[in-house]
Amino acid sequence: MTYELYYWPGIPGRGEFVRLALEAAGAKYTDVARSRKNGADAVVKFLESDNVARPPFAPPFLKDGDLLIGQTANILLYLGGRIGLAPKAEGGKLWTHQLQLTITDFVQEIHDVHHPIGGSLYYEDQKPAANKRAKDFRANRLPKFLGYFESVIARNAKGGGHLVGRSLTYPDVSLYHVIAGLRYALPRAMAKIEPDYPRLVALHDKVAALPKIKAYLKSKRRQPFNDYGLFRHYPELDG
Amino acid sequence: MTYELYYWPGIPGRGEFVRLALEAAGAKYTDVARSRKNGADAVVKFLESDNVARPPFAPPFLKDGDLLIGQTANILLYLGGRIGLAPKAEGGKLWTHQLQLTITDFVQEIHDVHHPIGGSLYYEDQKPAANKRAKDFRANRLPKFLGYFESVIARNAKGGGHLVGRSLTYPDVSLYHVIAGLRYALPRAMAKIEPDYPRLVALHDKVAALPKIKAYLKSKRRQPFNDYGLFRHYPELDG
Repeated sequence: MTYELYYWPGIPGRGEFVRLALEAAGAKYTDVARSRKNGADAVVKFLESDNVARPPFAPPFLKDGDLLIGQTANILLYLGGRIGLAPKAEGGKLWTHQLQLTITDFVQEIHDVHHPIGGSLYYEDQKPAANKRAKDFRANRLPKFLGYFESVIARNAKGGGHLVGRSLTYPDVSLYHVIAGLRYALPRAMAKIEPDYPRLVALHDKVAALPKIKAYLKSKRRQPFNDYGLFRHYPELDG
Repeated sequence: MTYELYYWPGIPGRGEFVRLALEAAGAKYTDVARSRKNGADAVVKFLESDNVARPPFAPPFLKDGDLLIGQTANILLYLGGRIGLAPKAEGGKLWTHQLQLTITDFVQEIHDVHHPIGGSLYYEDQKPAANKRAKDFRANRLPKFLGYFESVIARNAKGGGHLVGRSLTYPDVSLYHVIAGLRYALPRAMAKIEPDYPRLVALHDKVAALPKIKAYLKSKRRQPFNDYGLFRHYPELDG
């Protein structure tokens, strides 16, 4: 069975959280828009056609046979147990999903640092607000989220540095990507704050060293961060 | 079995989405912080104690025996099948959850209209940015989200006006509350735009007329909207 991932070509974006989970698990998938010419059309078709019974609001979405699943965290909820990246018992499954939803909130706030007024305007048209939001983000939100995830790993004392249980789950993989993205976007702020979160740094390194992830990061399937995506490097927002 | 809901007293907030689902289903629950003196302490305890193995990032959270579940949409995912407000088969369950996650995104954007810079500042300290964000929200995001949910109801042609299947599910109840909240926050904008979304208006009215919801709305358990919560009425943001 091959999963079909639909996401805008050209940016890692929210699609990357699904891609990384599939790669970490060694699951077979097609990154549909990147495997075709005019690949974005394949994404748009599902968003705009009246024939889609259960339309996604936005990409990423995943097609698995007849099932079409939208919302990043919902896709990972579906994939988790199937690809060996989540507990199957209900309590553990919900806890894993809860962490992913908190990562979703974190990612949204990271995005909104450069787009506090709205996605319909360019960054250049909302710079003063972005500057203020970045200041608040660096001072309050960044340490709050990092501290939360650090404490989750600390409380999972027998977990060998994982967020949930004793083995890799999809929020581990997503959090690796968030840390990598934050280092790209806010290198100065991160260099200053990272020593306070040794468990998160260790988790980042552990995921980056997984043979399947290592191979993926070197491949052409991995797209570099750039200033069209979620994580953008605008030096003036970096303190 | 009595569910325990933990949420800040004094505002409907995100806790209201859980409260409304429990009320619509006639499920037994305790609204912990509102049932005690100094009720907020009961919420803080779970957020700050080192003894909570699976700490929530923020309220609301739900306690059901030994299970502690955070993130509004995750709580509803857990409750859905149990209280008869979601399909039990996997495909329908995921679709219902996907809609709730899109409502979560919508609610976050509604909140950020009055807090575009950050929650650590008062509204009064971010008014110019709020004004710009409100303009973008009314012109672009509000019609996009309302149009999406209108089309979901339209595509569910045999659903009798529901979002999923032929009976009430938790996103129906949440969407009722979003529309009520938007009418409180942006009465002018909503009066102007509502005629374009007749199915959403009908869904709002259908949920408001459910005997259990009707009784709840008249009770003291229901807290009125106010300008400390998600939905705030600042006339200058209403166009």
